[in-house]
Amino acid sequence: MARAWHLKSRPNGLPTADNFEFKDIQLPELADGMVHVRNRWLSVDPYMRGRMNDVKSYVPPFQIGEPLEGGAVGEVVESRDPNFAAGDMVLHMVGWRDEAVVPAAALNKLPQIPGVEPQAFLGNLGLTGGTAYWGLLDAAQAKAGDIVFVSAAAGAVGSAVVQIAKAKGMTVIGSAGGADKCQFVRDLGADAVIDYKSGTPLVKALAEAAPKGIDVYFDNVGGEHLDAALALARKDARFAICGMIDGYNSGEPTSLRYIMRVIAMRIMLKGFIYTDYLPRNGEFYGEMGPWVATGQVKGRDTVLEGLEKTPEAFLGLFTGANTGKMLVKL
Amino acid sequence: MARAWHLKSRPNGLPTADNFEFKDIQLPELADGMVHVRNRWLSVDPYMRGRMNDVKSYVPPFQIGEPLEGGAVGEVVESRDPNFAAGDMVLHMVGWRDEAVVPAAALNKLPQIPGVEPQAFLGNLGLTGGTAYWGLLDAAQAKAGDIVFVSAAAGAVGSAVVQIAKAKGMTVIGSAGGADKCQFVRDLGADAVIDYKSGTPLVKALAEAAPKGIDVYFDNVGGEHLDAALALARKDARFAICGMIDGYNSGEPTSLRYIMRVIAMRIMLKGFIYTDYLPRNGEFYGEMGPWVATGQVKGRDTVLEGLEKTPEAFLGLFTGANTGKMLVKL
Repeated sequence: MARAWHLKSRPNGLPTADNFEFKDIQLPELADGMVHVRNRWLSVDPYMRGRMNDVKSYVPPFQIGEPLEGGAVGEVVESRDPNFAAGDMVLHMVGWRDEAVVPAAALNKLPQIPGVEPQAFLGNLGLTGGTAYWGLLDAAQAKAGDIVFVSAAAGAVGSAVVQIAKAKGMTVIGSAGGADKCQFVRDLGADAVIDYKSGTPLVKALAEAAPKGIDVYFDNVGGEHLDAALALARKDARFAICGMIDGYNSGEPTSLRYIMRVIAMRIMLKGFIYTDYLPRNGEFYGEMGPWVATGQVKGRDTVLEGLEKTPEAFLGLFTGANTGKMLVKL
Repeated sequence: MARAWHLKSRPNGLPTADNFEFKDIQLPELADGMVHVRNRWLSVDPYMRGRMNDVKSYVPPFQIGEPLEGGAVGEVVESRDPNFAAGDMVLHMVGWRDEAVVPAAALNKLPQIPGVEPQAFLGNLGLTGGTAYWGLLDAAQAKAGDIVFVSAAAGAVGSAVVQIAKAKGMTVIGSAGGADKCQFVRDLGADAVIDYKSGTPLVKALAEAAPKGIDVYFDNVGGEHLDAALALARKDARFAICGMIDGYNSGEPTSLRYIMRVIAMRIMLKGFIYTDYLPRNGEFYGEMGPWVATGQVKGRDTVLEGLEKTPEAFLGLFTGANTGKMLVKL
């Protein structure tokens, strides 16, 4: 009998353990073209919070009483499709459970990159690393010499942004909450680090860390960080907007004091989504793969063990429990 | 003796007549390379409000006790420069006064476009028309078939946006305040018009006017209009941000309830300034000149007569006194 986490109720604001229910599920018989997978690693990501609301968005909402979904790496147990065989490691979206029967078309065999562990495809070589890579280099068009500011720099996306920016010859200012996370960001190679929990107003802290202003802002949080970036943006600054974790739960409008600088500084803001870039995965693996394999771009995963910990891992994303990528190991 | 309007004090919020002082000025002797100009038409524009604050912006602030500046069309009275002769009509930035002695390098002879009146170079062939043209076609990359929303559509920039968009085969929704202005926008060719003073929430009004959503937003006002455009933006929508008249005077932060849609809809916002495009004036005159000459892009100027009316004309920009371009005729 397989087991899966289901959405019990829609969160109102910050999600709680009560929104989730752990239930047995019946796996269907293995028909032609289907593959039986045992999950090894599950990903939890902030975007999942959005799918818990009943609103139209870029991915359809989760349904109450139905199993949740999410990125996962698993091992093929049995295959009724010629492209997959028992023992293959695969990437797919049927997470939040231990076993699944998945159509072959919904599975991706993990690329063979020497020195890369399977769970990297949920992190630096997956959603979070890809978000960092494409957001920085395509949406924000960041280039060598740019001064880059990245919020949530100790998070999975942010820590990849810091390292990619350094690999590409940029100056990087990261913000993170608390001394430990700030030290982690410094160790990743950031040129300056802002502790947003220090009590110094963000605009002031950023002005000190970036006395010449910033050319690029990689936004993971929205809110005050976005406003501080607007305040310090130089002419022709470019902002990649990929996650506004501050806004996912609050439901409050975002208050921007410096939005008018968009005009004077000719700022461009660009929203983007990782999956738009999946057709360019070849380019991404080609550059990021070696960085990950050689350790030039490192992950520091926060790993909870056991399927029953999945909601706890997810909730931890909103309380700052993770440094780097949050994963569940089965 | 020439006369000029001076900045007497910096406005706090909405400017008032008390911020301006009318004084005689002494014109310098006409040295080599200088041109004596008698102004015929003065332009007043919302961006001038920004220059009345003592803050660094894309143009330096006006100084207290000094004459104000602004776009003007004048006639050369006497020239000590070989490129200009008495009787030439010229465009320059030494407005808010009746006469000026100007370096030849700061004067532009009006291009000869048959059927175009001189004051058009302060409007549809100048700052406001150029802002509309470049904002719509370059900053927002609007193209035939797009659904375009433009705020302050009865204003000088907005009314040009409506007409250029129609000339280019776009669907246009304009917002304006009050029945007269809405009728004016409809007469310009807009497919739908929103009266933002009607009491209907803007998001609701825009959803009714644009049931399929919008591809392009041309922002002249910021604030609630910007938020409504975010709420209705379709995938890959592009916003040209050129004036946030709502924010010039209030000093209040902008509250955005729908900013998070930037991500899901991959929205791009781009701030821009007309003067960045001056090197491309040839292109602009080439396309816009014939439209203006044939009446395909019309202006409806609001003209106050007499130099003494200049502050009144300027203040009227913030109370909705103008339909189309606000000008002072000397």
